[in-house]
Amino acid sequence: MPQFMDVHHGMKGITADQLKEAHEADLAVEKDEGVHFERAWADPDSGNVYCLSEAPSAEAVKRVHERTGHPADEIHQVPLSIW
Amino acid sequence: MPQFMDVHHGMKGITADQLKEAHEADLAVEKDEGVHFERAWADPDSGNVYCLSEAPSAEAVKRVHERTGHPADEIHQVPLSIW
Repeated sequence: MPQFMDVHHGMKGITADQLKEAHEADLAVEKDEGVHFERAWADPDSGNVYCLSEAPSAEAVKRVHERTGHPADEIHQVPLSIW
Repeated sequence: MPQFMDVHHGMKGITADQLKEAHEADLAVEKDEGVHFERAWADPDSGNVYCLSEAPSAEAVKRVHERTGHPADEIHQVPLSIW
């Protein structure tokens, strides 16, 4: 399944609880779209949040984030990865 | 140790081999700066590359990428993460 990195801007001051709450909201509806959000990282200073997911398409990722009230500003398929 | 997400722009058309080569170049010198690059993801279409690292500072991440010839365009400390 393709992997995606999506980015949210403007989340300055986000707390650990807010990140967890947003992630759990995504997990609660992701199956409807065949998406799985694997990890998320947040920088409260710049307000950037990065979410790594597996999904059938960027549109599916977009729909999950929209439904849970935090639309992504960028969604990039990342066919290349190293770990 | 703090975690960082850094972003490179302008890597359109990057291949799996080029990503691996760049990552291995970073791994070869990272210890000098106390950095460890854990993972990297690339989107050849947009040219964005994301690197996740553990490092003592953003400056240390910056120096490793500069030494290996692919300076980062953004470096964000990500004190919050979920997985």
